[in-house]
Amino acid sequence: VSSDLSVEGVHFRRAWLADAEIGYRAAAAALSDLAAMAAEPVGVLVSLAGSSGGASLVAVHAGVAEAARSVGAAVLGGDTSASPGPLIVDVVAVGRAATATLRSGARSGDELWVTGELGGSAAALEILQGGGSPGAELRDAFARPVPRVSEARWLAERGVLRALIDLSDGLVGDAGHLAAAGDVRIVLDGRAVPVAAAAATALGPGRALDAALYGGEDYELCFAAPAGSVRGDDFRRRFDLPLTRVGTVEAGAGVWLRSADGRVSEPERSGFDHFAGPV
Amino acid sequence: VSSDLSVEGVHFRRAWLADAEIGYRAAAAALSDLAAMAAEPVGVLVSLAGSSGGASLVAVHAGVAEAARSVGAAVLGGDTSASPGPLIVDVVAVGRAATATLRSGARSGDELWVTGELGGSAAALEILQGGGSPGAELRDAFARPVPRVSEARWLAERGVLRALIDLSDGLVGDAGHLAAAGDVRIVLDGRAVPVAAAAATALGPGRALDAALYGGEDYELCFAAPAGSVRGDDFRRRFDLPLTRVGTVEAGAGVWLRSADGRVSEPERSGFDHFAGPV
Repeated sequence: VSSDLSVEGVHFRRAWLADAEIGYRAAAAALSDLAAMAAEPVGVLVSLAGSSGGASLVAVHAGVAEAARSVGAAVLGGDTSASPGPLIVDVVAVGRAATATLRSGARSGDELWVTGELGGSAAALEILQGGGSPGAELRDAFARPVPRVSEARWLAERGVLRALIDLSDGLVGDAGHLAAAGDVRIVLDGRAVPVAAAAATALGPGRALDAALYGGEDYELCFAAPAGSVRGDDFRRRFDLPLTRVGTVEAGAGVWLRSADGRVSEPERSGFDHFAGPV
Repeated sequence: VSSDLSVEGVHFRRAWLADAEIGYRAAAAALSDLAAMAAEPVGVLVSLAGSSGGASLVAVHAGVAEAARSVGAAVLGGDTSASPGPLIVDVVAVGRAATATLRSGARSGDELWVTGELGGSAAALEILQGGGSPGAELRDAFARPVPRVSEARWLAERGVLRALIDLSDGLVGDAGHLAAAGDVRIVLDGRAVPVAAAAATALGPGRALDAALYGGEDYELCFAAPAGSVRGDDFRRRFDLPLTRVGTVEAGAGVWLRSADGRVSEPERSGFDHFAGPV
Protein backbone atom coordinates (compact mmCIF):
# COMPACT_ATOMS: atom_id res chain seq x y z
CA VAL A 1 0.00 0.00 0.00
CA SER A 2 1.48 3.32 -0.97
CA SER A 3 0.25 6.89 -1.08
CA ASP A 4 1.15 9.92 -3.12
CA LEU A 5 0.03 13.43 -2.28
CA SER A 6 -0.08 16.18 -4.93
CA VAL A 7 -0.68 19.78 -3.95
CA GLU A 8 -1.46 22.59 -6.39
CA GLY A 9 1.29 25.18 -6.24
CA VAL A 10 3.74 22.66 -4.76
CA HIS A 11 3.69 19.66 -7.10
CA PHE A 12 1.94 21.19 -10.09
CA ARG A 13 0.32 24.32 -11.41
CA ARG A 14 -3.08 24.17 -13.01
CA ALA A 15 -1.82 26.31 -15.88
CA TRP A 16 0.53 23.46 -16.83
CA LEU A 17 -1.79 20.49 -16.71
CA ALA A 18 -5.35 19.70 -17.67
CA ASP A 19 -7.44 18.55 -14.72
CA ALA A 20 -7.47 14.96 -15.96
CA GLU A 21 -3.67 15.05 -16.25
CA ILE A 22 -3.40 16.21 -12.63
CA GLY A 23 -5.29 13.08 -11.59
CA TYR A 24 -3.47 10.81 -14.02
CA ARG A 25 -0.07 12.02 -12.85
CA ALA A 26 -0.87 11.64 -9.16
CA ALA A 27 -2.17 8.11 -9.72
CA ALA A 28 0.82 7.19 -11.90
CA ALA A 29 3.15 8.27 -9.09
CA ALA A 30 1.33 6.08 -6.54
CA LEU A 31 1.18 3.13 -8.94
CA SER A 32 4.88 3.57 -9.63
CA ASP A 33 5.44 2.89 -5.93
CA LEU A 34 3.84 -0.52 -6.51
CA ALA A 35 6.08 -1.08 -9.52
CA ALA A 36 8.99 -0.28 -7.20
CA MET A 37 8.03 -3.36 -5.15
CA ALA A 38 7.32 -5.47 -8.25
CA ALA A 39 3.75 -5.73 -6.96
CA GLU A 40 0.61 -6.35 -8.95
CA PRO A 41 -1.79 -3.38 -8.64
CA VAL A 42 -5.22 -4.16 -7.22
CA GLY A 43 -6.71 -0.71 -7.04
CA VAL A 44 -6.47 2.90 -5.97
CA LEU A 45 -8.31 5.16 -3.54
CA VAL A 46 -8.46 8.82 -4.41
CA SER A 47 -9.13 11.71 -2.05
CA LEU A 48 -9.74 15.11 -3.61
CA ALA A 49 -10.02 18.49 -1.95
CA GLY A 50 -10.57 21.58 -4.03
CA SER A 51 -12.39 24.86 -4.15
CA SER A 52 -14.10 24.51 -7.47
CA GLY A 53 -16.50 21.75 -6.55
CA GLY A 54 -18.06 20.08 -9.55
CA ALA A 55 -16.70 19.59 -13.01
CA SER A 56 -13.02 19.99 -12.30
CA LEU A 57 -12.89 17.39 -9.52
CA VAL A 58 -14.78 15.03 -11.82
CA ALA A 59 -12.08 15.47 -14.46
CA VAL A 60 -9.30 14.89 -11.92
CA HIS A 61 -11.07 11.73 -10.81
CA ALA A 62 -11.37 10.56 -14.42
CA GLY A 63 -7.62 10.99 -14.84
CA VAL A 64 -6.99 8.86 -11.77
CA ALA A 65 -9.29 6.18 -13.14
CA GLU A 66 -7.51 6.24 -16.51
CA ALA A 67 -4.10 5.70 -14.91
CA ALA A 68 -5.52 2.88 -12.80
CA ARG A 69 -7.06 1.17 -15.82
CA SER A 70 -3.77 1.43 -17.71
CA VAL A 71 -2.23 -1.04 -15.27
CA GLY A 72 -5.30 -3.17 -14.69
CA ALA A 73 -6.28 -1.60 -11.37
CA ALA A 74 -9.73 -0.51 -10.17
CA VAL A 75 -10.82 2.62 -8.34
CA LEU A 76 -11.72 1.12 -4.96
CA GLY A 77 -13.01 4.24 -3.23
CA GLY A 78 -11.95 7.54 -1.81
CA ASP A 79 -13.29 10.75 -0.43
CA THR A 80 -14.03 14.22 -1.77
CA SER A 81 -14.34 17.49 0.05
CA ALA A 82 -14.77 21.13 -0.71
CA SER A 83 -11.67 23.04 0.35
CA PRO A 84 -10.98 26.75 0.46
CA GLY A 85 -7.37 26.10 -0.49
CA PRO A 86 -5.40 24.61 -3.37
CA LEU A 87 -6.47 21.51 -5.25
CA ILE A 88 -5.14 18.49 -3.41
CA VAL A 89 -5.04 14.96 -4.76
CA ASP A 90 -4.08 12.05 -2.53
CA VAL A 91 -3.91 8.69 -4.24
CA VAL A 92 -3.36 5.45 -2.35
CA ALA A 93 -2.43 2.44 -4.44
CA VAL A 94 -3.01 -1.09 -3.18
CA GLY A 95 -1.12 -4.01 -4.65
CA ARG A 96 -0.10 -7.55 -3.92
CA ALA A 97 3.06 -9.55 -4.35
CA ALA A 98 3.93 -13.06 -3.25
CA THR A 99 7.29 -11.65 -2.16
CA ALA A 100 7.85 -7.93 -2.32
CA THR A 101 11.08 -6.73 -3.88
CA LEU A 102 12.75 -4.30 -1.50
CA ARG A 103 15.28 -1.49 -1.71
CA SER A 104 17.70 -3.22 0.57
CA GLY A 105 19.21 -6.18 -1.30
CA ALA A 106 22.02 -4.62 -3.37
CA ARG A 107 25.39 -6.36 -2.86
CA SER A 108 28.93 -5.52 -3.79
CA GLY A 109 29.58 -6.72 -7.34
CA ASP A 110 26.00 -6.12 -8.56
CA GLU A 111 25.23 -4.02 -11.58
CA LEU A 112 22.89 -1.01 -11.47
CA TRP A 113 20.33 -0.72 -14.25
CA VAL A 114 17.61 1.72 -15.27
CA THR A 115 14.64 1.42 -17.61
CA GLY A 116 13.70 4.06 -20.17
CA GLU A 117 15.22 7.49 -20.65
CA LEU A 118 15.79 9.97 -17.86
CA GLY A 119 15.49 13.70 -17.37
CA GLY A 120 12.48 14.34 -19.61
CA SER A 121 10.09 15.22 -16.81
CA ALA A 122 12.54 17.57 -15.08
CA ALA A 123 13.44 19.19 -18.40
CA ALA A 124 9.75 19.85 -19.10
CA LEU A 125 9.35 21.31 -15.62
CA GLU A 126 12.37 23.58 -16.10
CA ILE A 127 10.93 24.85 -19.37
CA LEU A 128 7.48 25.39 -17.85
CA GLN A 129 8.96 27.21 -14.87
CA GLY A 130 10.80 29.49 -17.29
CA GLY A 131 7.51 30.34 -18.99
CA GLY A 132 8.21 28.22 -22.07
CA SER A 133 6.35 25.38 -23.76
CA PRO A 134 8.01 21.98 -23.80
CA GLY A 135 7.59 19.90 -26.96
CA ALA A 136 5.08 17.05 -26.95
CA GLU A 137 7.59 14.38 -25.96
CA LEU A 138 8.93 16.28 -22.95
CA ARG A 139 5.47 17.41 -21.94
CA ASP A 140 4.28 13.80 -21.96
CA ALA A 141 7.21 12.76 -19.79
CA PHE A 142 6.02 15.30 -17.23
CA ALA A 143 2.24 15.01 -17.60
CA ARG A 144 1.76 11.34 -18.40
CA PRO A 145 4.51 9.25 -16.81
CA VAL A 146 4.08 5.50 -17.27
CA PRO A 147 4.25 3.41 -14.10
CA ARG A 148 6.56 0.49 -14.98
CA VAL A 149 4.36 -2.16 -13.43
CA SER A 150 4.64 -4.82 -16.15
CA GLU A 151 8.36 -4.23 -16.55
CA ALA A 152 8.99 -4.70 -12.83
CA ARG A 153 6.99 -7.90 -12.65
CA TRP A 154 8.78 -9.27 -15.73
CA LEU A 155 12.15 -8.56 -14.14
CA ALA A 156 11.01 -10.02 -10.81
CA GLU A 157 9.81 -13.21 -12.50
CA ARG A 158 13.30 -13.64 -13.97
CA GLY A 159 14.83 -13.42 -10.52
CA VAL A 160 17.29 -10.64 -11.34
CA LEU A 161 16.03 -7.99 -8.92
CA ARG A 162 18.23 -7.84 -5.85
CA ALA A 163 17.02 -4.33 -4.98
CA LEU A 164 14.51 -2.12 -6.75
CA ILE A 165 13.28 1.46 -6.59
CA ASP A 166 11.38 3.82 -8.87
CA LEU A 167 12.99 7.08 -9.90
CA SER A 168 11.02 9.83 -8.22
CA ASP A 169 13.91 11.78 -6.69
CA GLY A 170 16.40 11.68 -9.60
CA LEU A 171 18.96 8.96 -10.28
CA VAL A 172 21.45 10.26 -7.71
CA GLY A 173 18.85 10.55 -4.98
CA ASP A 174 17.21 7.19 -5.60
CA ALA A 175 20.50 5.35 -6.08
CA GLY A 176 21.33 6.90 -2.72
CA HIS A 177 18.25 5.24 -1.23
CA LEU A 178 19.40 1.87 -2.60
CA ALA A 179 22.92 2.46 -1.28
CA ALA A 180 21.68 3.40 2.19
CA ALA A 181 19.18 0.55 2.40
CA GLY A 182 21.74 -1.99 1.22
CA ASP A 183 24.67 -0.57 3.16
CA VAL A 184 26.72 -0.39 -0.03
CA ARG A 185 28.35 2.20 -2.26
CA ILE A 186 26.98 2.83 -5.73
CA VAL A 187 29.14 4.31 -8.48
CA LEU A 188 27.18 5.82 -11.34
CA ASP A 189 28.78 6.14 -14.76
CA GLY A 190 27.74 9.61 -15.96
CA ARG A 191 28.49 8.70 -19.58
CA ALA A 192 26.13 5.72 -19.47
CA VAL A 193 23.07 7.54 -18.15
CA PRO A 194 20.31 7.30 -20.81
CA VAL A 195 19.45 10.99 -21.04
CA ALA A 196 16.19 11.66 -22.90
CA ALA A 197 17.11 12.89 -26.38
CA ALA A 198 14.41 15.56 -26.31
CA ALA A 199 15.83 16.89 -23.05
CA ALA A 200 19.32 17.13 -24.55
CA THR A 201 17.92 18.92 -27.59
CA ALA A 202 15.96 21.40 -25.49
CA LEU A 203 18.47 22.08 -22.71
CA GLY A 204 21.84 21.01 -24.12
CA PRO A 205 23.65 17.87 -22.96
CA GLY A 206 25.02 19.21 -19.67
CA ARG A 207 21.76 20.52 -18.26
CA ALA A 208 19.92 17.46 -19.59
CA LEU A 209 22.33 15.17 -17.71
CA ASP A 210 21.69 17.24 -14.59
CA ALA A 211 17.96 16.78 -15.13
CA ALA A 212 18.48 13.02 -15.30
CA LEU A 213 20.76 12.87 -12.26
CA TYR A 214 19.00 15.34 -9.98
CA GLY A 215 15.64 16.15 -11.53
CA GLY A 216 13.19 13.54 -10.36
CA GLU A 217 9.77 12.23 -11.34
CA ASP A 218 10.86 10.07 -14.27
CA TYR A 219 9.14 7.07 -12.66
CA GLU A 220 11.48 4.68 -14.41
CA LEU A 221 12.84 1.67 -12.54
CA CYS A 222 16.32 1.50 -11.06
CA PHE A 223 17.58 -1.85 -9.82
CA ALA A 224 20.60 -3.80 -8.70
CA ALA A 225 21.11 -7.17 -10.37
CA PRO A 226 23.81 -9.83 -10.09
CA ALA A 227 26.60 -9.24 -12.62
CA GLY A 228 25.75 -10.80 -15.98
CA SER A 229 22.19 -11.75 -15.01
CA VAL A 230 20.22 -9.17 -17.00
CA ARG A 231 19.19 -10.07 -20.53
CA GLY A 232 18.68 -6.56 -21.83
CA ASP A 233 17.76 -7.55 -25.39
CA ASP A 234 14.84 -9.70 -24.22
CA PHE A 235 13.57 -6.81 -22.13
CA ARG A 236 13.93 -4.25 -24.92
CA ARG A 237 12.09 -6.47 -27.39
CA ARG A 238 9.31 -7.22 -24.94
CA PHE A 239 8.69 -3.64 -23.85
CA ASP A 240 10.14 -1.52 -26.65
CA LEU A 241 11.95 0.39 -23.94
CA PRO A 242 15.65 1.01 -23.26
CA LEU A 243 17.31 -0.91 -20.45
CA THR A 244 20.70 0.50 -19.53
CA ARG A 245 23.47 -0.42 -17.16
CA VAL A 246 24.38 2.80 -15.40
CA GLY A 247 26.65 1.79 -12.57
CA THR A 248 28.10 -0.72 -10.17
CA VAL A 249 27.60 -1.67 -6.57
CA GLU A 250 30.68 -1.75 -4.35
CA ALA A 251 31.57 -2.06 -0.71
CA GLY A 252 31.31 1.27 1.07
CA ALA A 253 28.64 3.90 1.37
CA GLY A 254 26.93 6.64 -0.60
CA VAL A 255 26.57 7.46 -4.27
CA TRP A 256 29.54 8.42 -6.39
CA LEU A 257 29.73 9.64 -9.94
CA ARG A 258 32.26 8.62 -12.60
CA SER A 259 32.64 11.49 -15.03
CA ALA A 260 33.77 11.47 -18.68
CA ASP A 261 37.45 11.66 -17.69
CA GLY A 262 37.14 8.56 -15.54
CA ARG A 263 37.41 10.35 -12.20
CA VAL A 264 35.07 9.26 -9.42
CA SER A 265 33.72 12.02 -7.18
CA GLU A 266 30.77 12.80 -4.98
CA PRO A 267 27.80 14.31 -6.85
CA GLU A 268 27.33 18.07 -6.63
CA ARG A 269 23.98 17.80 -4.95
CA SER A 270 21.47 15.29 -3.71
CA GLY A 271 18.03 14.48 -5.09
CA PHE A 272 14.84 16.32 -5.44
CA ASP A 273 13.37 17.81 -2.24
CA HIS A 274 9.64 17.09 -2.25
CA PHE A 275 8.96 19.24 0.78
CA ALA A 276 10.48 22.31 -0.81
CA GLY A 277 8.58 21.43 -3.98
CA PRO A 278 9.37 22.10 -7.62
CA VAL A 279 7.07 24.98 -8.50
CA VAL B 1 -9.45 -0.27 2.49
CA SER B 2 -11.13 2.98 3.31
CA SER B 3 -10.14 6.63 3.28
CA ASP B 4 -11.23 9.68 5.20
CA LEU B 5 -10.32 13.23 4.21
CA SER B 6 -10.39 16.09 6.75
CA VAL B 7 -10.02 19.67 5.62
CA GLU B 8 -9.42 22.61 7.95
CA GLY B 9 -12.33 25.02 7.71
CA VAL B 10 -14.61 22.29 6.33
CA HIS B 11 -14.37 19.40 8.78
CA PHE B 12 -12.73 21.15 11.69
CA ARG B 13 -11.31 24.43 12.89
CA ARG B 14 -7.89 24.55 14.49
CA ALA B 15 -9.29 26.73 17.28
CA TRP B 16 -11.46 23.77 18.35
CA LEU B 17 -8.94 20.95 18.33
CA ALA B 18 -5.35 20.42 19.33
CA ASP B 19 -3.19 19.31 16.40
CA ALA B 20 -2.93 15.78 17.79
CA GLU B 21 -6.72 15.63 18.09
CA ILE B 22 -7.08 16.62 14.44
CA GLY B 23 -4.99 13.59 13.52
CA TYR B 24 -6.66 11.31 16.05
CA ARG B 25 -10.13 12.24 14.84
CA ALA B 26 -9.32 11.77 11.16
CA ALA B 27 -7.81 8.36 11.86
CA ALA B 28 -10.72 7.33 14.08
CA ALA B 29 -13.11 8.14 11.24
CA ALA B 30 -11.16 5.98 8.79
CA LEU B 31 -10.82 3.14 11.31
CA SER B 32 -14.55 3.37 12.00
CA ASP B 33 -15.07 2.51 8.32
CA LEU B 34 -13.24 -0.76 9.04
CA ALA B 35 -15.45 -1.34 12.08
CA ALA B 36 -18.40 -0.83 9.74
CA MET B 37 -17.24 -3.92 7.83
CA ALA B 38 -16.40 -5.85 11.00
CA ALA B 39 -12.84 -5.94 9.70
CA GLU B 40 -9.63 -6.28 11.70
CA PRO B 41 -7.45 -3.17 11.26
CA VAL B 42 -3.97 -3.79 9.85
CA GLY B 43 -2.69 -0.25 9.53
CA VAL B 44 -3.17 3.28 8.30
CA LEU B 45 -1.49 5.56 5.79
CA VAL B 46 -1.56 9.25 6.50
CA SER B 47 -1.08 12.08 4.04
CA LEU B 48 -0.68 15.57 5.45
CA ALA B 49 -0.63 18.91 3.67
CA GLY B 50 -0.27 22.11 5.62
CA SER B 51 1.35 25.49 5.60
CA SER B 52 3.10 25.38 8.93
CA GLY B 53 5.66 22.73 8.07
CA GLY B 54 7.33 21.26 11.12
CA ALA B 55 6.00 20.83 14.62
CA SER B 56 2.30 20.99 13.92
CA LEU B 57 2.32 18.28 11.25
CA VAL B 58 4.36 16.13 13.63
CA ALA B 59 1.63 16.51 16.26
CA VAL B 60 -1.10 15.66 13.76
CA HIS B 61 0.86 12.57 12.77
CA ALA B 62 1.24 11.56 16.41
CA GLY B 63 -2.53 11.79 16.84
CA VAL B 64 -3.03 9.50 13.86
CA ALA B 65 -0.57 7.02 15.33
CA GLU B 66 -2.34 7.09 18.70
CA ALA B 67 -5.70 6.29 17.14
CA ALA B 68 -4.12 3.47 15.14
CA ARG B 69 -2.46 2.00 18.22
CA SER B 70 -5.75 2.12 20.13
CA VAL B 71 -7.16 -0.53 17.79
CA GLY B 72 -3.93 -2.51 17.27
CA ALA B 73 -3.06 -1.01 13.89
CA ALA B 74 0.30 0.24 12.65
CA VAL B 75 1.19 3.37 10.67
CA LEU B 76 2.16 1.81 7.35
CA GLY B 77 3.26 4.92 5.52
CA GLY B 78 2.01 8.09 3.96
CA ASP B 79 3.13 11.31 2.44
CA THR B 80 3.64 14.88 3.64
CA SER B 81 3.75 18.09 1.69
CA ALA B 82 3.95 21.77 2.30
CA SER B 83 0.74 23.44 1.18
CA PRO B 84 -0.18 27.11 0.93
CA GLY B 85 -3.76 26.26 1.90
CA PRO B 86 -5.62 24.76 4.86
CA LEU B 87 -4.35 21.81 6.85
CA ILE B 88 -5.50 18.64 5.12
CA VAL B 89 -5.36 15.16 6.63
CA ASP B 90 -6.13 12.11 4.51
CA VAL B 91 -6.10 8.82 6.37
CA VAL B 92 -6.44 5.49 4.61
CA ALA B 93 -7.17 2.51 6.82
CA VAL B 94 -6.37 -1.03 5.70
CA GLY B 95 -8.06 -4.01 7.30
CA ARG B 96 -8.87 -7.64 6.73
CA ALA B 97 -11.88 -9.82 7.24
CA ALA B 98 -12.53 -13.42 6.27
CA THR B 99 -15.96 -12.26 5.15
CA ALA B 100 -16.79 -8.58 5.18
CA THR B 101 -20.09 -7.55 6.71
CA LEU B 102 -21.91 -5.32 4.25
CA ARG B 103 -24.61 -2.68 4.34
CA SER B 104 -26.93 -4.64 2.13
CA GLY B 105 -28.24 -7.59 4.15
CA ALA B 106 -31.15 -6.14 6.19
CA ARG B 107 -34.39 -8.10 5.76
CA SER B 108 -37.97 -7.46 6.66
CA GLY B 109 -38.53 -8.54 10.27
CA ASP B 110 -35.01 -7.66 11.43
CA GLU B 111 -34.36 -5.40 14.37
CA LEU B 112 -32.23 -2.26 14.11
CA TRP B 113 -29.68 -1.69 16.89
CA VAL B 114 -27.11 0.96 17.77
CA THR B 115 -24.14 0.95 20.11
CA GLY B 116 -23.34 3.76 22.53
CA GLU B 117 -25.09 7.10 22.86
CA LEU B 118 -25.81 9.43 19.98
CA GLY B 119 -25.75 13.14 19.35
CA GLY B 120 -22.78 14.05 21.54
CA SER B 121 -20.45 14.98 18.70
CA ALA B 122 -23.05 17.09 16.88
CA ALA B 123 -24.05 18.79 20.15
CA ALA B 124 -20.42 19.70 20.80
CA LEU B 125 -20.10 21.04 17.26
CA GLU B 126 -23.26 23.12 17.65
CA ILE B 127 -21.91 24.63 20.87
CA LEU B 128 -18.50 25.32 19.32
CA GLN B 129 -20.09 26.92 16.27
CA GLY B 130 -22.07 29.18 18.59
CA GLY B 131 -18.87 30.30 20.23
CA GLY B 132 -19.41 28.28 23.41
CA SER B 133 -17.38 25.64 25.20
CA PRO B 134 -18.82 22.14 25.40
CA GLY B 135 -18.24 20.21 28.63
CA ALA B 136 -15.59 17.53 28.74
CA GLU B 137 -17.91 14.66 27.86
CA LEU B 138 -19.37 16.35 24.79
CA ARG B 139 -16.00 17.66 23.71
CA ASP B 140 -14.57 14.13 23.87
CA ALA B 141 -17.44 12.80 21.77
CA PHE B 142 -16.42 15.32 19.10
CA ALA B 143 -12.61 15.29 19.47
CA ARG B 144 -11.91 11.68 20.42
CA PRO B 145 -14.52 9.36 18.92
CA VAL B 146 -13.86 5.67 19.54
CA PRO B 147 -13.90 3.44 16.47
CA ARG B 148 -16.02 0.42 17.48
CA VAL B 149 -13.65 -2.14 16.03
CA SER B 150 -13.76 -4.70 18.85
CA GLU B 151 -17.50 -4.32 19.24
CA ALA B 152 -18.11 -4.98 15.55
CA ARG B 153 -15.93 -8.08 15.50
CA TRP B 154 -17.60 -9.42 18.66
CA LEU B 155 -21.01 -9.00 17.04
CA ALA B 156 -19.80 -10.52 13.78
CA GLU B 157 -18.40 -13.55 15.59
CA ARG B 158 -21.84 -14.13 17.10
CA GLY B 159 -23.39 -14.15 13.64
CA VAL B 160 -26.03 -11.52 14.36
CA LEU B 161 -24.95 -8.89 11.82
CA ARG B 162 -27.15 -9.01 8.77
CA ALA B 163 -26.19 -5.46 7.75
CA LEU B 164 -23.80 -3.02 9.40
CA ILE B 165 -22.79 0.62 9.08
CA ASP B 166 -21.05 3.18 11.25
CA LEU B 167 -22.86 6.38 12.15
CA SER B 168 -21.07 9.17 10.37
CA ASP B 169 -24.08 10.86 8.75
CA GLY B 170 -26.55 10.72 11.66
CA LEU B 171 -28.92 7.88 12.47
CA VAL B 172 -31.51 8.91 9.87
CA GLY B 173 -28.92 9.27 7.12
CA ASP B 174 -27.09 6.04 7.88
CA ALA B 175 -30.25 4.01 8.45
CA GLY B 176 -31.18 5.36 5.04
CA HIS B 177 -28.00 3.83 3.60
CA LEU B 178 -28.94 0.45 5.11
CA ALA B 179 -32.50 0.78 3.78
CA ALA B 180 -31.33 1.65 0.28
CA ALA B 181 -28.64 -1.05 0.18
CA GLY B 182 -31.04 -3.72 1.48
CA ASP B 183 -34.06 -2.55 -0.52
CA VAL B 184 -36.10 -2.37 2.68
CA ARG B 185 -37.89 0.22 4.78
CA ILE B 186 -36.57 1.09 8.23
CA VAL B 187 -38.81 2.54 10.92
CA LEU B 188 -36.93 4.30 13.71
CA ASP B 189 -38.53 4.67 17.11
CA GLY B 190 -37.72 8.23 18.16
CA ARG B 191 -38.42 7.43 21.83
CA ALA B 192 -35.87 4.60 21.82
CA VAL B 193 -32.93 6.57 20.41
CA PRO B 194 -30.17 6.61 23.08
CA VAL B 195 -29.54 10.34 23.13
CA ALA B 196 -26.32 11.30 24.96
CA ALA B 197 -27.31 12.60 28.38
CA ALA B 198 -24.78 15.43 28.21
CA ALA B 199 -26.29 16.53 24.89
CA ALA B 200 -29.78 16.62 26.39
CA THR B 201 -28.51 18.63 29.35
CA ALA B 202 -26.70 21.13 27.13
CA LEU B 203 -29.25 21.53 24.34
CA GLY B 204 -32.53 20.33 25.78
CA PRO B 205 -34.16 17.03 24.77
CA GLY B 206 -35.62 18.14 21.44
CA ARG B 207 -32.43 19.58 19.96
CA ALA B 208 -30.43 16.70 21.41
CA LEU B 209 -32.68 14.19 19.65
CA ASP B 210 -32.18 16.15 16.43
CA ALA B 211 -28.41 15.95 16.99
CA ALA B 212 -28.71 12.17 17.32
CA LEU B 213 -30.96 11.76 14.30
CA TYR B 214 -29.37 14.24 11.92
CA GLY B 215 -26.06 15.31 13.41
CA GLY B 216 -23.45 12.82 12.34
CA GLU B 217 -19.96 11.78 13.37
CA ASP B 218 -20.91 9.68 16.39
CA TYR B 219 -19.01 6.71 14.89
CA GLU B 220 -21.20 4.28 16.76
CA LEU B 221 -22.35 1.10 15.02
CA CYS B 222 -25.82 0.64 13.57
CA PHE B 223 -26.86 -2.83 12.47
CA ALA B 224 -29.76 -5.00 11.45
CA ALA B 225 -30.07 -8.33 13.28
CA PRO B 226 -32.58 -11.17 13.11
CA ALA B 227 -35.39 -10.65 15.62
CA GLY B 228 -34.45 -12.00 19.04
CA SER B 229 -30.83 -12.78 18.10
CA VAL B 230 -29.05 -9.99 19.96
CA ARG B 231 -27.95 -10.66 23.52
CA GLY B 232 -27.64 -7.08 24.67
CA ASP B 233 -26.65 -7.86 28.26
CA ASP B 234 -23.62 -9.88 27.19
CA PHE B 235 -22.54 -6.99 24.96
CA ARG B 236 -23.05 -4.36 27.64
CA ARG B 237 -21.08 -6.34 30.21
CA ARG B 238 -18.27 -7.02 27.78
CA PHE B 239 -17.85 -3.44 26.54
CA ASP B 240 -19.44 -1.30 29.25
CA LEU B 241 -21.38 0.38 26.45
CA PRO B 242 -25.11 0.71 25.77
CA LEU B 243 -26.66 -1.41 23.05
CA THR B 244 -30.12 -0.25 22.11
CA ARG B 245 -32.82 -1.46 19.78
CA VAL B 246 -33.95 1.63 17.89
CA GLY B 247 -36.14 0.35 15.10
CA THR B 248 -37.44 -2.36 12.83
CA VAL B 249 -36.88 -3.41 9.26
CA GLU B 250 -39.97 -3.79 7.07
CA ALA B 251 -40.85 -4.32 3.45
CA GLY B 252 -40.80 -1.07 1.54
CA ALA B 253 -38.31 1.74 1.10
CA GLY B 254 -36.76 4.67 2.94
CA VAL B 255 -36.45 5.67 6.57
CA TRP B 256 -39.48 6.54 8.67
CA LEU B 257 -39.71 7.88 12.16
CA ARG B 258 -42.18 6.83 14.86
CA SER B 259 -42.72 9.77 17.17
CA ALA B 260 -43.85 9.84 20.81
CA ASP B 261 -47.53 9.78 19.83
CA GLY B 262 -47.03 6.59 17.80
CA ARG B 263 -47.44 8.22 14.40
CA VAL B 264 -45.02 7.16 11.67
CA SER B 265 -43.85 9.89 9.30
CA GLU B 266 -40.95 10.78 7.06
CA PRO B 267 -38.09 12.54 8.86
CA GLU B 268 -37.87 16.29 8.47
CA ARG B 269 -34.52 16.17 6.78
CA SER B 270 -31.87 13.78 5.64
CA GLY B 271 -28.37 13.25 7.02
CA PHE B 272 -25.29 15.29 7.29
CA ASP B 273 -23.94 16.76 4.03
CA HIS B 274 -20.18 16.26 4.01
CA PHE B 275 -19.62 18.37 0.93
CA ALA B 276 -21.33 21.40 2.45
CA GLY B 277 -19.38 20.74 5.63
CA PRO B 278 -20.17 21.45 9.26
CA VAL B 279 -18.10 24.54 10.04
